[in-house]
Amino acid sequence: MTERIRDFLRDRRVNGLEDGPVLVVDLEVVRENYAKFARALPDTRVFYAVKANPEPKLLALLARLGSCFDTASVTEIQLALSAGATADRISFGNTIKKERDIVRALELGVRLFAVDCEVEVDKIARAKAATGAEDVRVFCRILCDGAGAEWPLSRKFGCEPDLAVDVLDHAHRAGLHSYGVSFHVGSQQPNTEAWDGALGSASRIFRELADRGIQLSMVNLGGGFPTKYLKDVPAVEAYGDSIFRALSRHFGNRLPETIIEPGRGMVGNAGVIESEVVLVSHKSKAEDDVRWVFLDIGKFGGLAETMDEAIRYDIRTEHDEDRRVPCVLAGPTCDSADVMYEKTPYWLPVSLEIGDLVQIEGTGAYTATYSSVAFNGLPPLRTHVI
Amino acid sequence: MTERIRDFLRDRRVNGLEDGPVLVVDLEVVRENYAKFARALPDTRVFYAVKANPEPKLLALLARLGSCFDTASVTEIQLALSAGATADRISFGNTIKKERDIVRALELGVRLFAVDCEVEVDKIARAKAATGAEDVRVFCRILCDGAGAEWPLSRKFGCEPDLAVDVLDHAHRAGLHSYGVSFHVGSQQPNTEAWDGALGSASRIFRELADRGIQLSMVNLGGGFPTKYLKDVPAVEAYGDSIFRALSRHFGNRLPETIIEPGRGMVGNAGVIESEVVLVSHKSKAEDDVRWVFLDIGKFGGLAETMDEAIRYDIRTEHDEDRRVPCVLAGPTCDSADVMYEKTPYWLPVSLEIGDLVQIEGTGAYTATYSSVAFNGLPPLRTHVI
Repeated sequence: MTERIRDFLRDRRVNGLEDGPVLVVDLEVVRENYAKFARALPDTRVFYAVKANPEPKLLALLARLGSCFDTASVTEIQLALSAGATADRISFGNTIKKERDIVRALELGVRLFAVDCEVEVDKIARAKAATGAEDVRVFCRILCDGAGAEWPLSRKFGCEPDLAVDVLDHAHRAGLHSYGVSFHVGSQQPNTEAWDGALGSASRIFRELADRGIQLSMVNLGGGFPTKYLKDVPAVEAYGDSIFRALSRHFGNRLPETIIEPGRGMVGNAGVIESEVVLVSHKSKAEDDVRWVFLDIGKFGGLAETMDEAIRYDIRTEHDEDRRVPCVLAGPTCDSADVMYEKTPYWLPVSLEIGDLVQIEGTGAYTATYSSVAFNGLPPLRTHVI
Repeated sequence: MTERIRDFLRDRRVNGLEDGPVLVVDLEVVRENYAKFARALPDTRVFYAVKANPEPKLLALLARLGSCFDTASVTEIQLALSAGATADRISFGNTIKKERDIVRALELGVRLFAVDCEVEVDKIARAKAATGAEDVRVFCRILCDGAGAEWPLSRKFGCEPDLAVDVLDHAHRAGLHSYGVSFHVGSQQPNTEAWDGALGSASRIFRELADRGIQLSMVNLGGGFPTKYLKDVPAVEAYGDSIFRALSRHFGNRLPETIIEPGRGMVGNAGVIESEVVLVSHKSKAEDDVRWVFLDIGKFGGLAETMDEAIRYDIRTEHDEDRRVPCVLAGPTCDSADVMYEKTPYWLPVSLEIGDLVQIEGTGAYTATYSSVAFNGLPPLRTHVI
């Protein structure tokens, strides 16, 4: 919670301008985060993962600071362009693309695409032919076990490294520029050494393709850089050091061009959601019955990442000096799945009561756009970027 | 899939009017479903659960047919009123309400409210005083174990029956009309006998309050009536018979007024989502490697109920006579959680390919409003009501 966010929220509430949950993102924090990434990985280009938070003012700041943009759809490409990024600073990083969306991206000037299979390469080759685009670059995403991450990724994105060699060879033969390899070590990755294994795989792919006469240029180190929720996380510098050592270990003095795709790490700690306590109740007359606290935001209103109680947000109240009691924390909808913390209750002040405002820290990423469009008649989460 | 939906979709696609996933709801099916509920439970009023699908044309049809409406928010109350329902046919069924929303509901004429604790009763009593509303009715929701349901509900809604007695007594003393008891046997409940235990609890609450001089009138039997996905489900008539027997068993010849709140059971089978296959791929060179099929709709685009692979939709393709192979089925976003069926693969025709359209049956409920507002830059699911 920054001073700026606190003042902004106080003004809005005092003047009756807010009713319902609201997310406030402080651009000063984003600016600091960008500077930390730039310092920690000075030879690495930053491709901000637009999906984490696509607010126009946020994208405009990052564009001014020199950031590039990792996009998941044509809409996100258009958002990045509108924010002032030139097309050469945009990658279409989704491995699952409709061919007509690839055509549209090429028409908009984008030349860098993620793939993880030969049929996706074929789509890009056909779209290239259809548009006459030159120097269309592809990087192949490889699977990575994501061990240790708070959200180890599924096998949804990427292919086995030996298949990646074939995919990039296929791209080369299809007239595309086989540009590099990408991977993702898992979201909210606390292990600064997690990049080592995948960089080993990447270097082997570089060598195998070199043997076939194809020179790759780039390693996309993905995201995974954590933001602080309740537990402390390593500083960006520690990730930078570890990644640089791993790069040197696997690539010697022929270091590839590198890019990173921070999303959560760039905006997570820049945002605070303010929410109202709607109800505090008990389910039985038993003395030791757990207290239920219901907020006006829940899983469907922006806190989807509490799914399986994966992310535990830091929640602040006006009573934080008081004695705390275990609470089940739930959202406002008539949906029984809309419970944030139950298996591991959340300890909240015993004096917390209906009508109190609480601040949910570290909610700048993966909240507003995740929220449902109209479930239970509730509007999506509003965002203010200050 | 009805003839009307098939024709509508064909016309739209042929004329290039659809790009991206779309939900089509056939009002004729809703009309039949309403008639089935009315026949199966002739003395029970139907309160359609608006949250299942709040499309204006759908609500207008139900209003014309004589349905009442169970709402979760002021917005849903306004939708029901706009559809032609009078306020006396609307209940505010959410047990988690802001006091100012209760005031607004009373101002709009609503007089029936769900509660499950004393502090919620106090909010309603204060709102009654503030608005001068007369005969404000409350029913208390009790916990029900939901055994056997496909989605057994959490303990989020309701209180223990002995606490419900105190809550209704409290409401009476606060000047409210203590009107009855509600419960929910769990969503997609295949056991037609599931209502028996909760009706036993309800009848005990009626007796205990009668001993205190308070006459309850109504039992809200909730929802839970299933729609057909892949497995067959009992007919509505079987539920009606079983519920009537349980009512007689527990209430003798002094049967209470009853209401039901079908949502899924009213609109689930009236809707079909059409979606496009974006990618079919493998992750490795292994012969037996599982096939991945990616659609342009996923967990964040309207299929949220595939969470934990809870609901298995019936998916139709143009190749359904072909040999089937196990597939992981995933959505189009850059989110590794956006995988519908992986633990239990989904068997799809080996000839299914990129660009094919598939029809996802039984998607009339809990899809469109669940979808995220803009995740990955993708628009929310569009609905056509025909």
